[in-house]
Amino acid sequence: MDNENVSSHISKRFNDDLQELKNHLLMMGGVVERQVTDGVLSLVDANSELALNVRSNEKQVNTFELNIDEECTSVLALRQPAAGDLRMVVAILKAITDLERIGDEANKIAKLAIKLTEEGQAPRGYVEVRHIGQQVQEMIHKALDAFARFDVELALEVAQADRAVDIEYNSAMRQLVTYMMEDPRSISRVLNIIWALRALERIGDHARNIAEHVIYLVKGQDIRHANLDAIKESVLGSA
Amino acid sequence: MDNENVSSHISKRFNDDLQELKNHLLMMGGVVERQVTDGVLSLVDANSELALNVRSNEKQVNTFELNIDEECTSVLALRQPAAGDLRMVVAILKAITDLERIGDEANKIAKLAIKLTEEGQAPRGYVEVRHIGQQVQEMIHKALDAFARFDVELALEVAQADRAVDIEYNSAMRQLVTYMMEDPRSISRVLNIIWALRALERIGDHARNIAEHVIYLVKGQDIRHANLDAIKESVLGSA
Repeated sequence: MDNENVSSHISKRFNDDLQELKNHLLMMGGVVERQVTDGVLSLVDANSELALNVRSNEKQVNTFELNIDEECTSVLALRQPAAGDLRMVVAILKAITDLERIGDEANKIAKLAIKLTEEGQAPRGYVEVRHIGQQVQEMIHKALDAFARFDVELALEVAQADRAVDIEYNSAMRQLVTYMMEDPRSISRVLNIIWALRALERIGDHARNIAEHVIYLVKGQDIRHANLDAIKESVLGSA
Repeated sequence: MDNENVSSHISKRFNDDLQELKNHLLMMGGVVERQVTDGVLSLVDANSELALNVRSNEKQVNTFELNIDEECTSVLALRQPAAGDLRMVVAILKAITDLERIGDEANKIAKLAIKLTEEGQAPRGYVEVRHIGQQVQEMIHKALDAFARFDVELALEVAQADRAVDIEYNSAMRQLVTYMMEDPRSISRVLNIIWALRALERIGDHARNIAEHVIYLVKGQDIRHANLDAIKESVLGSA
């Protein structure tokens, strides 16, 4: 083999590594997305069997995180990627932390579902949980799609959807607080719904973070802490 | 210059880079620690001036995160660290995310302090906020100390302290819920205290994460998701 062949062979193996890393991230994302769907369903349908299922899948998510983390570190050590490839590995390292925390929040929702089945369902808030649940599931899905296709516009959509979730969340909270005041006996049950909404709102934040990792990855631009409109202008303007 | 000198020169610059990276992490940590102290103080003393101060310092924390993040990426790209050095850069990359999120939570507490000063203070829960606040401040401080000295035992202490915080948090929550049921007019004000306690509990989680990054860094062992006693045995047993 001459030198050129050796180097193209190495670079092929490197690309395979990166592709595999990305596939593993997307697989982990698929599992986490499912955890959120099932967590929300177990709560709104008072299905404790499904909730227990979510709780027992948590280990799988954690194992994914540890394995991908190790893969990233070993790609950094052995392949010493530069520029865009390096950004991709760093983006994956960060995205798995967000995915793992989404899994944690789904697990909390499943825990609340079990509590609500045992202690008696809350009188209000299920519509809101279902609705905000759908919104954040869609955000996770789009954020992962954006990662798969390096799609910056889709990633920006996710960042904007997070705003909409925050608005709905605040309005649901106000309603539930009013409800608790009107019927104090419901407080502890309604609080469980409030915790579930909080978990969903956090999931939205993490989905947004993942979308931001995509933008950083593609554009080399760090949009955390930046104003959304300014980003949109600069990213789409230069796209 | 002969080859040996060149290489020792490069390795000196590399060590300087790593030391600087660590110093910047500790500087950021100092600022964040202060944010938590001031956030808690602004709430329990109903000091909205201090709360506004916390809120305006958030930008500084964000800037730290972005700069250190960039430093880490450039050390990875230019110096291509291996083994322990690589683990250190990865640990710093992760620790700054946790520090930034601690800053976010401190900011939320400051926001609640302003709300409570405007809407009227809550009738209960200040003792608990102060107390849990002290516990998590100490956790942050110890976690950063553990980073500074690569001290695994201290890091394990932080992980154990997180358990104690969770227990106190749960007991405080039960009391506040009982209180809201007894006096429904207090609900929305007591909820603000509940949010503050939640923020503190999250800060404890992040401090624990930072401590775990130290253990990973020193021992090359990933203790996330592992049982605390098993870790203690294996880490201290092999120390």
